[in-house]
Amino acid sequence: MIIVGELINGTRAPVRAALERRDADAIADLARRQVEAGADYLDCNVGAVGAREVELMGWLVRTVGQAVDAPVCIDTPSPAAMAAGLSEYRGDAPPLVNSVTLEGARLEETLAVLGGRRVRIVALAMTDAGVPETGHGRAQASLRLIGELTDRGLPAVDIFVDPVVTPLSVDGAGARAACEAMRAIASARPECHLICGISNVSFGLPERALLNRVFLAQAVAAGLDSAILDPTDRPLRATLHAAEALAGRDAWCAGYLQAYRSGTL
Amino acid sequence: MIIVGELINGTRAPVRAALERRDADAIADLARRQVEAGADYLDCNVGAVGAREVELMGWLVRTVGQAVDAPVCIDTPSPAAMAAGLSEYRGDAPPLVNSVTLEGARLEETLAVLGGRRVRIVALAMTDAGVPETGHGRAQASLRLIGELTDRGLPAVDIFVDPVVTPLSVDGAGARAACEAMRAIASARPECHLICGISNVSFGLPERALLNRVFLAQAVAAGLDSAILDPTDRPLRATLHAAEALAGRDAWCAGYLQAYRSGTL
Repeated sequence: MIIVGELINGTRAPVRAALERRDADAIADLARRQVEAGADYLDCNVGAVGAREVELMGWLVRTVGQAVDAPVCIDTPSPAAMAAGLSEYRGDAPPLVNSVTLEGARLEETLAVLGGRRVRIVALAMTDAGVPETGHGRAQASLRLIGELTDRGLPAVDIFVDPVVTPLSVDGAGARAACEAMRAIASARPECHLICGISNVSFGLPERALLNRVFLAQAVAAGLDSAILDPTDRPLRATLHAAEALAGRDAWCAGYLQAYRSGTL
Repeated sequence: MIIVGELINGTRAPVRAALERRDADAIADLARRQVEAGADYLDCNVGAVGAREVELMGWLVRTVGQAVDAPVCIDTPSPAAMAAGLSEYRGDAPPLVNSVTLEGARLEETLAVLGGRRVRIVALAMTDAGVPETGHGRAQASLRLIGELTDRGLPAVDIFVDPVVTPLSVDGAGARAACEAMRAIASARPECHLICGISNVSFGLPERALLNRVFLAQAVAAGLDSAILDPTDRPLRATLHAAEALAGRDAWCAGYLQAYRSGTL
């Protein structure tokens, strides 16, 4: 499982405060804690828009890069903010950019910003009409977007398809639709990755951590191989180990047993 | 979700001891605790074979029936033990009998014991060649067994298909195969129920409760609507509520929110 640590997100109050104070130590601490807990990428989302987003994204990517070696995930719908983040990224591994969609000119504008630079890219199942309601609709949008990206030379193995996880409190069929979409995409394009923002599902409901764990278990069974989540949430990581073993993706339960012996379960 | 409480099982040491002493109070206590925790059926498995199984099954079904109103699940491969259990059952609701398979004469012998009495029946995906390895094989065996039962007049709505859950420690692909089988059976015969013994999956591995919860979450997403489990395991029941909501089977999250308010989550 490829884990994108979600904690450096400006919609969270402590991160918003750190961004306002340009508190590099607070950001570095969050970066280190997530890498120690197993994050492969560190999400960088400044939770702002416009010129402020552009300025903060540059500072944030630079600050994270000074603290840890792990690659960043530049998390913004804005091509300008993405450009600012990319220009400050010094890591060796290609960063993840999150995201492109089928909305308007966003795909072309984002690809123009990338300018042939090697990145891994989150492809969000979203069109000008919004997020398709059904799993079939989300799979169709995703497959079309994969086609647009590979037609422009992006290797399929660098595409992380996100079927969009809507909050269960808003859309009672959304989590199921996301899993159905993943199953269809995994079958049609097994070389692509599948990614989700796990905690979106529980927004607005009580016992969010429980819902996040159960959704992660179901999504892994549907083919999820990458996730944006809180790697410091130990019960969530324990769930991940169990889910991968049960999904037949952990030969001899070696990963599960290793996690048990190391005290992660 | 239809819950079959699993605790009255003679392979568990305290139940074995209670059976040996014919300790009706201990059995009644286990029966009441499971009904209070939400069990719809109470599994009766004496964990013995031969004449001893027949004798104990009669005593056990009678003892459970004297303690609670909930129907029993007569859990034995032996037609003679099943007959003994049925003869002692006095409840109004039809009992569940667990199980019939496609092995040898077991189906005919079991149906002869039932003699037209209304029961609900667990149909286990097992043939003379054992449990089919793949999800497809288990689904095919299950669909054949459903056909045999409906041909003999059993209503499809009274059939609980069990795709067989093998321990993950023995068969790393078995949990996934069970889920694949359930998905196929739910699609082909949506009027039938789908049932599993949840805790089988974790036999021989550490942190069994974790594996049980994660498997339950995945199985519910695959269509499971009935389960043999420990209803007094509160984190397992919390998982069940979350899994049903995420699978789109809990309109407006009403069941989930009710469970939250009642302190079950």
